[in-house]
Amino acid sequence: MPYFTLDASSLQHWLTNHADLASRLGGSPADWTIREVSDGNLNTVFLVDGSGGSLCCKQALPHVRVVPDWPMPLERALYEARYMRATADAVRPAAPELYFYDDEMFLLVMECLTPHEVLRTALIRDEAQPGFSAVIGQYVARSVHATSWISQPFEHGSKLLADFAGNTALTRITVDLILTDPFRPCSRNPSPETGLLPDVEALQADKPLHRAVGSLQERFLTARQALLHGDLHTGSIMLHNNDVRVIDGEFATMGPIGFDCGLYLGNLTLHACAAPDKNALITSEITAFWNSFTTELRTLLKTGGGDVWALSDETQRRDLLDNFLLDILRDTAGFCGLEIIRRTVGFAQVADYTLCATPESRTAARRKALQTGRALILKAPSLHTLEDLLSVLTLQ
Amino acid sequence: MPYFTLDASSLQHWLTNHADLASRLGGSPADWTIREVSDGNLNTVFLVDGSGGSLCCKQALPHVRVVPDWPMPLERALYEARYMRATADAVRPAAPELYFYDDEMFLLVMECLTPHEVLRTALIRDEAQPGFSAVIGQYVARSVHATSWISQPFEHGSKLLADFAGNTALTRITVDLILTDPFRPCSRNPSPETGLLPDVEALQADKPLHRAVGSLQERFLTARQALLHGDLHTGSIMLHNNDVRVIDGEFATMGPIGFDCGLYLGNLTLHACAAPDKNALITSEITAFWNSFTTELRTLLKTGGGDVWALSDETQRRDLLDNFLLDILRDTAGFCGLEIIRRTVGFAQVADYTLCATPESRTAARRKALQTGRALILKAPSLHTLEDLLSVLTLQ
Ligand SMILES: Nc1ncnc2c1ncn2[C@@H]1O[C@H](COP(=O)(O)OP(=O)(O)OP(=O)(O)O)[C@@H](O)[C@H]1O
Ligand SMILES: Nc1ncnc2c1ncn2[C@@H]1O[C@H](COP(=O)(O)OP(=O)(O)OP(=O)(O)O)[C@@H](O)[C@H]1O
Repeated sequence: MPYFTLDASSLQHWLTNHADLASRLGGSPADWTIREVSDGNLNTVFLVDGSGGSLCCKQALPHVRVVPDWPMPLERALYEARYMRATADAVRPAAPELYFYDDEMFLLVMECLTPHEVLRTALIRDEAQPGFSAVIGQYVARSVHATSWISQPFEHGSKLLADFAGNTALTRITVDLILTDPFRPCSRNPSPETGLLPDVEALQADKPLHRAVGSLQERFLTARQALLHGDLHTGSIMLHNNDVRVIDGEFATMGPIGFDCGLYLGNLTLHACAAPDKNALITSEITAFWNSFTTELRTLLKTGGGDVWALSDETQRRDLLDNFLLDILRDTAGFCGLEIIRRTVGFAQVADYTLCATPESRTAARRKALQTGRALILKAPSLHTLEDLLSVLTLQ
Repeated sequence: MPYFTLDASSLQHWLTNHADLASRLGGSPADWTIREVSDGNLNTVFLVDGSGGSLCCKQALPHVRVVPDWPMPLERALYEARYMRATADAVRPAAPELYFYDDEMFLLVMECLTPHEVLRTALIRDEAQPGFSAVIGQYVARSVHATSWISQPFEHGSKLLADFAGNTALTRITVDLILTDPFRPCSRNPSPETGLLPDVEALQADKPLHRAVGSLQERFLTARQALLHGDLHTGSIMLHNNDVRVIDGEFATMGPIGFDCGLYLGNLTLHACAAPDKNALITSEITAFWNSFTTELRTLLKTGGGDVWALSDETQRRDLLDNFLLDILRDTAGFCGLEIIRRTVGFAQVADYTLCATPESRTAARRKALQTGRALILKAPSLHTLEDLLSVLTLQ
């Protein structure tokens, strides 16, 4: 079927033509309820409920959903499907199951997460059950283990490089919106509130910072360590009680593992900047993430399987892994800083700042975020432990 | 035309069906002389002479040429053609021109280098005109500049990742023969001469060395800095007087720039190990290579163009480039050490050792090579300058 943009009624029709999917919903099509829940920037998402079950249907639009004159290739849906397939076995049950991908409609049909809530929303509403970050740490470790040169014959990684190298439209967004635009005048950057103007000007004139960002740009594009989710913020996670799931892998690319970690920790930190009363919770989530990530990765990489470190015994692997985790920690800090800055002054800002009671406190929160981001980027190369990283965050 | 293995007479027939190529040769097909000059391990090479010009025709065989029961996918010829196309404009005239690639016959037709000699042979015969390494340094700098994230929009590098990620059959050779086999008992390793047995046993039991090799394995597969030639030894270079050309790019892959540098310097060093009277020449060639490589790369990367370092001014670029070159130097030393070791005790050894007058001097030369290789790999991370690297080589 040639591509067209689905609405509730054409989606209903499309589903009736896919018996497997229709039977998951059960009952008669007329009884299905279909509601659009798109809240991201890019795609249309419908949730479909039937008497026997429910489905989530996500379709790419030929443009950015919230900016219709910004064209965006439909193929991003293909990369999201590939990412889900490449990681499903490793991360199950921490992601929704992909039931079907239609490569002409650029449509993913997956497990409907219900009554789950997006983590960012849950945090803002103070509804998230603490400890969720341990699942995310495990998720990152497992997806990395399934796709890295250390655990897999290199041919596996080469196939992933080939499969994801074409995802340039979304990587271009990362390169521009995270790695470049916030540090230069750019029409895509929203005008900052007056009180923040001097901070933004300082950011854009901050030569030592730009130099450090240059090194992170190089890391992001050069260090192809494993398959990344590529957009692991608190809006890409849904949860209900202790059932925590990662969605929205359309930015998937081979890259530095610390990029996924950094984006996640950056969004937690942003939440604490906006709501300093949550400092203790956020500190404990960051700690839970890092402990679970490193523990799981150590366990998984204890035995070999890849071409990298193939000559090493267990003692050496432990030692090599220590260095590897140190590099990941430093990358994490750097990308965490970049994410904090871009979500504060760049194109796609975060709703967490709505928690600030007054314009003044919001400006103060943003200033603190910019300072924290800057400190992270500059200090990243000299960090040694999670405690070092936490001390840069000053959430105590 | 479905694939079949060419011989002189079927090649003549094939050429008559390709008018452009036939007209480069001139005269009548009956007057062409065709001789096979294959001396590598993998492919068949014919040189064709006509009254008006000459051609070099290189065809992939479905197996390793020198080991007919070792199958090898024909597609390697495609990657060599892609490599030549991806780098031709940047490196001209330091590579033969590719005239035609036949993707069914897996046949490259290129400029015939005549009366050029393979550099390794010229070195062994003491016929190479000194200074050739400056051209190779420039070649590496130019090919790297044409394909790196620093100088090109990242989409260019992503395309190269996709185009070369499938070259796994030849990368598997690199991973096994250079990065793994020499350090473990392996049926592909030829039995060493008795005098070298203790050295080989020590090499295969050398835990600190294996650990350092592990880091180089990680660099090779993870650090996708630019498009590499992938097999830049003295047998992949032909020269006549000061006309120096790089051939045989079938191992091309995105990887760490120091890999190309290290293989080249490793083969120079091997020559000096085999012929210590050439120490001064080799030292001066290594110096010429590094000076020309770094000077050219500094000049080319002075102006930007890539997404990496996009925020940096000229002063910062210089500074970032200093660090970048230091990383390349360390990678160079490590891969240089690996190449020296594998060419001394691994599957594909080098003819340079035939220069040793007696079996005893050959064993001594090999022992010196193994020691030098080991020292390079272990000391690589602490080097700072070319002089540091030269002092590890102990060619004085
Ligand atoms: N499997 C699912 N089950 C239930 N709801 C979902 C599911 N996947 C997505 N959603 C809902 O749809 C919304 C948008 O999904 P998603 O974040 O994948 O879209 P997007 O347009 O790609 O977003 P972004 O702009 O952040 O990339 C989510 O915030 C969530 O509310
Ligand atoms: N363009 C050329 N002009 C003249 N002679 C050439 C040319 N290309 C290759 N040759 C000759 O053919 C020989 C084999 O070529 P080449 O090294 O490309 O083959 P190969 O089988 O891939 O080698 P290897 O096993 O090293 O990969 C060279 O050593 C050289 O003598």
